[in-house]
Amino acid sequence: MTNYKEVKAEILAIGDELLYGQIMDTNSHWISQELDKIGVRVVRRTTVGDNRESILSAFESAEKRADIILMTGGLGPTNDDLTKPLLAEYFNCEIKLVPEALEAVRIFFERRGRELTHLNKLQAHLPTNCTYIPNELGTAPGMWFHEKGKIWMSMPGVPHEMKKLMTDQVIPRLKEIFPLPHIYHKVIKTVGIGESWLADLIKDWEANLPPHIRLAYLPSLGQVRLRLTAFGSNTKELEQEVEQELKKLNPLIDKYIYGYNQETLEEAIGRLLKLHGKNVAFAESCSGGYISHLVTTVPGSSDYFQGAIIPYHNEFKNNILGVENDVLKKFGAVSEETVIQMAENVRKLFRSDIGLSSSGIAGPSGGTDEKPVGTVWIACAMEKKTLTKKLLLTQDRMLNIQLTAVAVLNLLRLCLEEKTE
Amino acid sequence: MTNYKEVKAEILAIGDELLYGQIMDTNSHWISQELDKIGVRVVRRTTVGDNRESILSAFESAEKRADIILMTGGLGPTNDDLTKPLLAEYFNCEIKLVPEALEAVRIFFERRGRELTHLNKLQAHLPTNCTYIPNELGTAPGMWFHEKGKIWMSMPGVPHEMKKLMTDQVIPRLKEIFPLPHIYHKVIKTVGIGESWLADLIKDWEANLPPHIRLAYLPSLGQVRLRLTAFGSNTKELEQEVEQELKKLNPLIDKYIYGYNQETLEEAIGRLLKLHGKNVAFAESCSGGYISHLVTTVPGSSDYFQGAIIPYHNEFKNNILGVENDVLKKFGAVSEETVIQMAENVRKLFRSDIGLSSSGIAGPSGGTDEKPVGTVWIACAMEKKTLTKKLLLTQDRMLNIQLTAVAVLNLLRLCLEEKTE
Repeated sequence: MTNYKEVKAEILAIGDELLYGQIMDTNSHWISQELDKIGVRVVRRTTVGDNRESILSAFESAEKRADIILMTGGLGPTNDDLTKPLLAEYFNCEIKLVPEALEAVRIFFERRGRELTHLNKLQAHLPTNCTYIPNELGTAPGMWFHEKGKIWMSMPGVPHEMKKLMTDQVIPRLKEIFPLPHIYHKVIKTVGIGESWLADLIKDWEANLPPHIRLAYLPSLGQVRLRLTAFGSNTKELEQEVEQELKKLNPLIDKYIYGYNQETLEEAIGRLLKLHGKNVAFAESCSGGYISHLVTTVPGSSDYFQGAIIPYHNEFKNNILGVENDVLKKFGAVSEETVIQMAENVRKLFRSDIGLSSSGIAGPSGGTDEKPVGTVWIACAMEKKTLTKKLLLTQDRMLNIQLTAVAVLNLLRLCLEEKTE
Repeated sequence: MTNYKEVKAEILAIGDELLYGQIMDTNSHWISQELDKIGVRVVRRTTVGDNRESILSAFESAEKRADIILMTGGLGPTNDDLTKPLLAEYFNCEIKLVPEALEAVRIFFERRGRELTHLNKLQAHLPTNCTYIPNELGTAPGMWFHEKGKIWMSMPGVPHEMKKLMTDQVIPRLKEIFPLPHIYHKVIKTVGIGESWLADLIKDWEANLPPHIRLAYLPSLGQVRLRLTAFGSNTKELEQEVEQELKKLNPLIDKYIYGYNQETLEEAIGRLLKLHGKNVAFAESCSGGYISHLVTTVPGSSDYFQGAIIPYHNEFKNNILGVENDVLKKFGAVSEETVIQMAENVRKLFRSDIGLSSSGIAGPSGGTDEKPVGTVWIACAMEKKTLTKKLLLTQDRMLNIQLTAVAVLNLLRLCLEEKTE
């Protein structure tokens, strides 16, 4: 790892709308992640407005610090947008029509049945010393410069256009030009355990990791991602080393791992349901449809999602879902007895292999001494048994909805993987 | 407006975890918005890592450009965190124990039943020339400096701690120190019309706005926010002027306005349902629970949300929701006839005043020539009539789910406000 001269990058976002807080700059964050993956070190991120002096001074200071300067924004055809003329000025060259770029813009508009305006044509005029990088998803081309001993790349600010240019063009080019370290990443996705408990379970394993394999904890709502990053000179070897480490890690936290890399919890659920040939239905009270929403964001979920009932009042828990009035009266809607009947009955109603339910006090009001805000019961009914779990969550309604959904999906996962106690 | 000397600010975010893309910097965006509201002009945002040279050079260049430098992050008690010692170095002063700050940290830990460690105590040591600003929600104090002719404020990187310090302390202090313009903001929230159509409807009104009232279009999924910003010397007068302009605007786009300022569409729906004393139920097919989720994120929604059925297959549209098999066979699940029966039947099932339904092809697969991906039917059943609408959306599954939800909530709004054709 130390054999490599560190390659440094600066990310420059351009646009008044960013500085004034009208648009959140998600581009710089995404670019940071992509550069980190290939071992380029981001040393600074800067955001400036549509202002000549600001942009030129940002060019100057970035040039001093970085080997690579990646820019987004300021590429529209109107007078507000200054990136292109200022790059030409900074590199002391002219702006001329690039026929290839004009053809691309022409085709872009033709496909959409729209007329090419004078302003659109201007987008095909580029600084003479740049390499034209086609933008298949929009009209502002990418511009790649090798000037003043640095690599400069200007990209449009529209996120999906920028991402495609980065993925298809910029990252491969950077890998070719710079002697970057070989890097192998693996993300282990866990659910159902907090960061500090997880850290405690794996502390000996972590202490014994070789120095060229780094571990990062990336917590989010009810989940923790563990990211292993290995640096070396041979990706294949790194992959083998990381997989060896995973073999040692797995038995320590097997119960909490639901997937690897990009897979989301709801995608993992889909994969497991298909694997086991099972389908599901939900009876959602306090989660209000959020579990069903998560599951149905996954393409192909109609293969295993039968449907759901959201009975937001006792009356409907009884007359639509068949929860007995005696149970509701005696134990209340937020009780183990109620979620058992909800899960078992929704399973029958939708003729599904598995039925899951939630009932709780999402807040901010509705809590009692016995059942404070954040009290939630969940259940998972299968053919031969029904499992339940009580959750004690937070004071925050949105958080309680989200954490309930994660807990229900995790209970479903444990049932499918037969990892419940 | 031009009578005021522009007050300039730079926002500085400090932390390796930001540069490497492990954490998204939402702080800088939020601070941008808050400064914009009080008429402070953000001229640059910079993100640097936990690195001595980077942080010092960021101080230097911010000092050259801005009157106010707001910093977040790098305030933890460990050696990685450099903001405090570097501020002391930059302003040439010592770091000493502040008894008031120690007492605050002690109480913070006492309340949580935790022991004060040596590292925690270090957080009460501050540069001698700063004003100590208590952080009620965490252990890293705010530090306010008036040095080198500028205002410098260092805040913790934890968003809710930073926000409370900004709102309670920083914004009021800045308003006191700087002769800021009086500003009045009003956001008009519209739904059901695209940005360019909206712009066309109001172009004459926009052209006649006085120069000290600015208009911004802020589009998001299926919605466009119009933000009016008035600058002057008397907030009361500005408010009256803006309200006068709104009176002229309203008749032009009345049908599309659902609320003002912070109110979300689902909150507006809640307000209207309560106002009219009505309640609702949903039959969600392609939206998969997302409409119910949006509605139930609003505190108190149990007052008007009865419940929902998500029948993800024809079988359940029939045997749970009572859609006739003949209708499903003849017209298909994605048809006007089906969504009418879904809406009318879910209304009866949940004894609700209004029933709404969605059925469509969310994609990415399942489209046909006749009904391509993105084809969605929605319906709204009331006591005396049922309205329907056909949507032709996108190729993107997530987008189709979100746009369907916005369209259904908008149809409900129009029914409640009796603004349907």
